[in-house]
Amino acid sequence: MKIAVIGSTGHTGYVLKGLRGQADAELVGIAPGSVGEDIEVLYEYALKQGLAPRKFEQYRDMLDQVKPDVVAVACYFNDHAAVAVEVLSRGIHLFVEKPVATTLQDLEKVKAAHEKSGAQLAAMFGIRYSSWFLTVQRLIQEGRIGEIRMMNAQKSYRLGERSELYRRRETYGGTIPWVGSHAIDWMYSLCGESFVSVFASHSTRANRGHGELETTGLCHFTFTNEVFGSVNIDYLRPQQAPTHADDRIRIAGSNGVLEVVNNQVLLINGDADGIQHAPLLSAQESFTDFLQQVRGSSSCLVTAEQSFTVTEACLRARMSADKGRVVYF
Amino acid sequence: MKIAVIGSTGHTGYVLKGLRGQADAELVGIAPGSVGEDIEVLYEYALKQGLAPRKFEQYRDMLDQVKPDVVAVACYFNDHAAVAVEVLSRGIHLFVEKPVATTLQDLEKVKAAHEKSGAQLAAMFGIRYSSWFLTVQRLIQEGRIGEIRMMNAQKSYRLGERSELYRRRETYGGTIPWVGSHAIDWMYSLCGESFVSVFASHSTRANRGHGELETTGLCHFTFTNEVFGSVNIDYLRPQQAPTHADDRIRIAGSNGVLEVVNNQVLLINGDADGIQHAPLLSAQESFTDFLQQVRGSSSCLVTAEQSFTVTEACLRARMSADKGRVVYF
Repeated sequence: MKIAVIGSTGHTGYVLKGLRGQADAELVGIAPGSVGEDIEVLYEYALKQGLAPRKFEQYRDMLDQVKPDVVAVACYFNDHAAVAVEVLSRGIHLFVEKPVATTLQDLEKVKAAHEKSGAQLAAMFGIRYSSWFLTVQRLIQEGRIGEIRMMNAQKSYRLGERSELYRRRETYGGTIPWVGSHAIDWMYSLCGESFVSVFASHSTRANRGHGELETTGLCHFTFTNEVFGSVNIDYLRPQQAPTHADDRIRIAGSNGVLEVVNNQVLLINGDADGIQHAPLLSAQESFTDFLQQVRGSSSCLVTAEQSFTVTEACLRARMSADKGRVVYF
Repeated sequence: MKIAVIGSTGHTGYVLKGLRGQADAELVGIAPGSVGEDIEVLYEYALKQGLAPRKFEQYRDMLDQVKPDVVAVACYFNDHAAVAVEVLSRGIHLFVEKPVATTLQDLEKVKAAHEKSGAQLAAMFGIRYSSWFLTVQRLIQEGRIGEIRMMNAQKSYRLGERSELYRRRETYGGTIPWVGSHAIDWMYSLCGESFVSVFASHSTRANRGHGELETTGLCHFTFTNEVFGSVNIDYLRPQQAPTHADDRIRIAGSNGVLEVVNNQVLLINGDADGIQHAPLLSAQESFTDFLQQVRGSSSCLVTAEQSFTVTEACLRARMSADKGRVVYF
């Protein structure tokens, strides 16, 4: 399999890590996906990993010349959709940074191109392959907390000093889609329900000169079967914090409560008294999983449907926050 | 000061505890506040504490005969308002269970009676006197996290087996007002902002035969200055959990993050690297604090304005959840 990467802005690390040990897969090319995007660091990193991709100025030239089987796209966020359409229109399998698009119109274009192409697609929801997420998913599948009734997730990041990309809605897409998408994906993929509505708020206050970047976001989702889910998102994690991110989720079920804090999984249910520390499953690699699906040997944990639906949920939440009203799915 | 108690359903323990060491205050009477309310257990408990109240069948008789200076009301939740009005109309100071009323119409009646009476009033927001709350309040006042930007609170209780009172909206008032009111009060009293709107959801699913009792509730408040606050409320805490309640709050500010878990206060800010465990202030007694205000020697931590505004916020949140729309203040 010939693999190519377009862009070096998002989580391209997933691709290089995911290629390890994949004897039939070769990184054949790297190209920028957005005007002004610098791919030099990624290229040097690939060389250090013992890979030998060709460098291209224009991704279309790369697609035409090396004819990759699989392309990973991780350019400026507002260009994900256009590049995705270009890749899919050539029938190439697509591993694409989330959110898949930064507008609902662009999302529709990607969905149409995907349907027409028959190609495989998965978004880079890499946290789904973490030990804690896989463990939580397994415990829920085993019925350890009964039926899910309410979920409360958190994404908290250090702000640091971010590039111009993050400071303009047009290129960044917003904090709910960029940061919140992970947590929205956790809830959606875990609960097995459909989205009904979202009410959300966000604010740029206290963003330390980061223009249009929203520092806080709060989303309230209702799902089918009266399941509710909240996500609180912020860039207010102090520099003094022990880690960059403080990801959490608490899931209250009819027969137990599951919680993730500091990458540990805590469980309270009828199996034992008190709070149990669940043994963690091993982490997996998202791109490796996607390649397995391309080979036809298994189904990718992140489906195309989830990639699209979660992107849509993010964009509807952003719309709700912009307009201050409930948005329905 | 002559003290009387009407009702034995809510947090009457605050009153008996708060009387300790108050040499000038005497418990003179106890009466039911609702039809069918049994005050025997409370009466026996008072005797064991060395108190000698008279027992009355009718609280109006008690008010007329013993002419108390201060009355605590904690009867069936839907009767708080009517009893409060009766107490206030006699110019008696009122320490009343939260929510102050279970309908907005009743709340207006209490507010009008309070205004006319000139009497002191505080609702039983007892958690405000806990070590952790007093500590959080102090740290915020000292500017240790800068300006508050977002708050996420939790109230999670064991359900157990609850009486008929809890199983009918008419008598219970709903889970958002009964359980959620605490967390809504924390947020409101800490942030110093005004309520702008609320979107909320609740569900009776998985309530194990508890009729109309909502098992889950989720509220999304917007405050002035683009401050947001969520409360997730549930009765899904398993019996195996180490404690009855799992109260939490996380407050993200422009210069730090404060968090309460397991009654401990965690702080991340510029004062030190990593997560600091804040030294806890001593807990206080809510009723003692109210008596001090009645004596004129200090201001009660819980103001009448807060008691009314938080009750209103609970009832507007419940309305939002019932109707599925944003409710404005």
